[in-house]
Amino acid sequence: MNTVFWSPGLEQLEPYTPGEQPSGTTLIKLNTNENPYPASPRALALLAQKDFADALRRYPDPESCELRAAIATRYGLNDRQVFVGNGSDEVLALSFYSFFRRNEPLLFPDITYSFYPVYCQLFDIESRSIPLSEDFSLNVEDFSGTAAGIIIPNPNAPTGRHLSLDRIEALLQLQPERVVIIDEAYIDFGGESATQLIEQYPNLLVIHTLSKSYALAGLRLGFAMGQEHLIEGLLRAKNSFNSYPIDAIAQEVATAAIRDRAWHENNCSKVVATRSRTEEALLELGFEVIPSKANFILAKPPAPGAEALYLALRELGILVRYFNKPRISEYLRISIGTDQEMDQLIGNCKEILASQS
Amino acid sequence: MNTVFWSPGLEQLEPYTPGEQPSGTTLIKLNTNENPYPASPRALALLAQKDFADALRRYPDPESCELRAAIATRYGLNDRQVFVGNGSDEVLALSFYSFFRRNEPLLFPDITYSFYPVYCQLFDIESRSIPLSEDFSLNVEDFSGTAAGIIIPNPNAPTGRHLSLDRIEALLQLQPERVVIIDEAYIDFGGESATQLIEQYPNLLVIHTLSKSYALAGLRLGFAMGQEHLIEGLLRAKNSFNSYPIDAIAQEVATAAIRDRAWHENNCSKVVATRSRTEEALLELGFEVIPSKANFILAKPPAPGAEALYLALRELGILVRYFNKPRISEYLRISIGTDQEMDQLIGNCKEILASQS
Repeated sequence: MNTVFWSPGLEQLEPYTPGEQPSGTTLIKLNTNENPYPASPRALALLAQKDFADALRRYPDPESCELRAAIATRYGLNDRQVFVGNGSDEVLALSFYSFFRRNEPLLFPDITYSFYPVYCQLFDIESRSIPLSEDFSLNVEDFSGTAAGIIIPNPNAPTGRHLSLDRIEALLQLQPERVVIIDEAYIDFGGESATQLIEQYPNLLVIHTLSKSYALAGLRLGFAMGQEHLIEGLLRAKNSFNSYPIDAIAQEVATAAIRDRAWHENNCSKVVATRSRTEEALLELGFEVIPSKANFILAKPPAPGAEALYLALRELGILVRYFNKPRISEYLRISIGTDQEMDQLIGNCKEILASQS
Repeated sequence: MNTVFWSPGLEQLEPYTPGEQPSGTTLIKLNTNENPYPASPRALALLAQKDFADALRRYPDPESCELRAAIATRYGLNDRQVFVGNGSDEVLALSFYSFFRRNEPLLFPDITYSFYPVYCQLFDIESRSIPLSEDFSLNVEDFSGTAAGIIIPNPNAPTGRHLSLDRIEALLQLQPERVVIIDEAYIDFGGESATQLIEQYPNLLVIHTLSKSYALAGLRLGFAMGQEHLIEGLLRAKNSFNSYPIDAIAQEVATAAIRDRAWHENNCSKVVATRSRTEEALLELGFEVIPSKANFILAKPPAPGAEALYLALRELGILVRYFNKPRISEYLRISIGTDQEMDQLIGNCKEILASQS
């Protein structure tokens, strides 16, 4: 590859690798934490009902006012405490740019969302990864010391472990002079959101996505919530990068989805119930299961082990996520599908494990 | 504003200011170069016809393969010579990051798209603005000298002036060791695209948008075309910023729009015809008109002058763009609307000018 025209350093970037998105539809996809059910029918109905010709001809609202108002209402905030972006990945990228470009390392757990170190490379941010305990639990005190920004997913990914609100408060108090980002992509499946701490903590930024609990991964919509001075910082960066990141259709569909609280609560309950059943079934098969508050389970299968099981399941048309990485290479991350999909998974695991013994 | 949590330098960023997007619909909007006609009916029909529930539930194709193939076919390129982004603004931002972060100034005209200096601030890139001639024409030789990247819009914005293909070639030859970006947002309204030079020039990157000639500003879709080694550089940056920038609906609508060449050619012809009529009418009213190959006209009104006329038109419900900036503060940039909208504009200008004399 001819890289002479590239900016210095570009060649050294190691991009994030998303989970596989096969184009065929016959596979059971339990590898990217998508929701198994279709999104709010009120949100989906807009597409068929509305004439978007004029909305598409014009530039969209650069500030996504209506969508931000819906989110603010949902979380008891005001509109100026809400920032929206093209997926929570974009919100995260702009947050790293806005708050973490400092002459000091950013702190995050050693097992966490693997996009964080990529943003650090992108914006030349030093980082220090803080080891989780043997059982993947996070010890808040490990994040103390000299002033440093912090980012953690809660529940953590890919472990699924949840940190209680008093532990989040402890983190916020340990680093009062720096931004602490709580990435709550998976919070709606039984976790306790830190949004209720926003009033008290000027250094708290909470990030959500519509990709998981709203079943809208295909729409690309994420948002950040925090005190106004943090949201202003994000806007400064966003408006220097892309004035109109949210298209006209996405603004409307997302607004309707956020407003349909009944659908959302029902959907999360269904996923949580299926997760419980799946945890029990995996334990019965001899897996070690990390307790999860997310829409996935990290679990360590018995022999023939994670990689062999991943490949065998793949042969049978079931995709789960295998990370060939330190500490978690003996685990599989399994997204929660429908009850039927999970029955199929459990049945196939049973057969594969039985054929080994 | 409390900025203690911001990264150093964030406060100094001066974001781009987009043209006003009023929420009322009774105004005649000739201020943001939107297309006056609805997009391809084939593209729009998809929204009503297709069931997007499953596409939205899942992550979209991170590589937008089908859309890139449609663009490649349209321009006689291969798929790996095409990069797509969330509006051409995102494509531009990633291009600045990928190619222009060097210890040397980037060159662009002193009158040009005002987002360029903002990207430079965002990524800490030095720049040098090259003065256009008195009549806003660009002298290619002014871009020679030590190695330096170049970016120019062609046609230029907000002047509307077009540079012929042999002048573009001269630019490419003047800076063979650096990327030269030709930002062709307005090329389809009578200009000659540099895409046909891609095979010959490894340093050429051409950027297009669906916001103007495709009447899809609300969809946020832009793309870059160039030799594979440049596209690879862009992918490296994009995949370190946001894996899935193009949502599932936008991918499909954009693909259908690109494929509907008959609609596109017809639409551009209509806009060009209205532009000619408008130029003539403005000349008749005593405006100085810069010859335009874009879907807007930069013109200098007679007394009471640009700012007064802008305000008076606004009172009458017509928005045009007034830039309070050196060299162009006596001009108005007027987007090409429908014939009826332009008749209204001309009629109102006539009255306002008459009431002055």
